[in-house]
Amino acid sequence: MEFTDLHPDTSTYLGQAAYLQLSVFEMLSTLSAAMDDLSFSPGVAEAAAIALRKHTSLTDEIRRREEDPATSMAQPKESVRRLREETDGGSLEQRVLSVYVTAGLLDDLFLGLASSLPSDISKRVTAILAEDNRRDVLRQYLQSRIQLAPEISSMLALWGRRLVGDTLLLAHTIVPNENGATEERVEPVFTELIAAHTRRMDSLGLTA
Amino acid sequence: MEFTDLHPDTSTYLGQAAYLQLSVFEMLSTLSAAMDDLSFSPGVAEAAAIALRKHTSLTDEIRRREEDPATSMAQPKESVRRLREETDGGSLEQRVLSVYVTAGLLDDLFLGLASSLPSDISKRVTAILAEDNRRDVLRQYLQSRIQLAPEISSMLALWGRRLVGDTLLLAHTIVPNENGATEERVEPVFTELIAAHTRRMDSLGLTA
Repeated sequence: MEFTDLHPDTSTYLGQAAYLQLSVFEMLSTLSAAMDDLSFSPGVAEAAAIALRKHTSLTDEIRRREEDPATSMAQPKESVRRLREETDGGSLEQRVLSVYVTAGLLDDLFLGLASSLPSDISKRVTAILAEDNRRDVLRQYLQSRIQLAPEISSMLALWGRRLVGDTLLLAHTIVPNENGATEERVEPVFTELIAAHTRRMDSLGLTA
Repeated sequence: MEFTDLHPDTSTYLGQAAYLQLSVFEMLSTLSAAMDDLSFSPGVAEAAAIALRKHTSLTDEIRRREEDPATSMAQPKESVRRLREETDGGSLEQRVLSVYVTAGLLDDLFLGLASSLPSDISKRVTAILAEDNRRDVLRQYLQSRIQLAPEISSMLALWGRRLVGDTLLLAHTIVPNENGATEERVEPVFTELIAAHTRRMDSLGLTA
C-alpha cells in the first residue's frame, strides 16, 4: 500500500491539514518569541509566516467547497493540541527539536496523503504543501547549540525518540481506516515517514 | 513642534522600528496561540504576519545601508522587552488590550517620525508602515468579550490607563532629544498620540 491508495475523505483531510498549519504557525512563532536571539528568531518567524500562508490557502480550499473552516478545524483540534502539550516543555533546544520533528513528520504525511485526493484538488493542495517550509533555520539553530554543548546530544536523541513515538500515534489516527487500510497494510507508508525522520535526525548528528 | 521637525537618527530609527514590528509579530502570534478560538485566532495570526512583513521590509532598509539588522535591533531590544513584560499578564482580554493599545500607540509614533527621515527613505518607510495592520480583529474580539460580560469594562479601562502610561514612557525615550526637542516642545506630538489612543479606547466603549 502506498500513499496514493489511501483516499482520505476530502473534507476531513482539509480540516486536519489547515489546522495543522495553523498549529505549526503557533509553535514556530512562540519559539521565535522565546528564542530572544536575533540571529535566529527572525528566520523562525519567517518559517511561521510560511505555515500561516499554507493555512490560509487551505482554508480557501475549504471555503471553495462551501464549508466553514472553523467547523472543519474543530475536529482535529483536540488531538493536535494534545500532541503539542505532550511534546512541549523542557529546554529551548528540546522545544525546537519538537517542532522540527513533529511538524516535519506530519508535513510528510499530509503531502503524501494529498496525492490520493481527487485529481484537481490534489494538484492544488500538493502545490500548497510542497512550498519550501524554510525550517532550515531550526536545523541551524540546533546544530549551533550542539556544537556549543555536545553533551546535549544524547538527551536530544532520546527526546527525538519520544517525539517520533507521540507523532506516529497521531499519524495513525489520521490515516484513513477505510479501503482495507489495516495496520499491516499501511506499514509501508509509515516506513517512508520514519525514513524521512531518520534523515532529519541524521542531519543533526543525532541517532534516530 | 510637529513630527516633521523631529529628525531622528536614521540608523537608530530603523533598528527601533524593525525590532518593534518583530515584537508586535511575537505578541500577536502568542495571542493567536493563546486564544484557542477559531473564529478569532486565524485573524490574529494574519495580523501577526503583517507585522512580520513590515519587520522584513525594514530590515531590508537596514541592509540597504550596509548595516546589520541584528546589531541595529540590539539597542532597542531591552526597552521594548521591558514594556512587554510590564504590559503582559492578566486575563486574555487584558493581554489583547495590551497589544491593541501599546502597538497602536507605538505604530502611530513611528509612522509620525518617518515623516522627518531623509526624503527617499521617508517615502519607503512611510509606505511600509502605512499598510493596514489588520488589527480590527483585536477590537472585534474585545467588543465581543465586553458584550458577553459588560462588568469587565471598568477593569479594562483601568488597565488601558496603565498601558498608555507605560507606553508613553517608552515613547519619550524614542523621541530624539536633539534639535531642541525638549519635553515641552514635543508635547504637541504626544497630544496627537494620546488623541489617537482615546479614539481606540472609545471604539471599545472604554474611558481613556
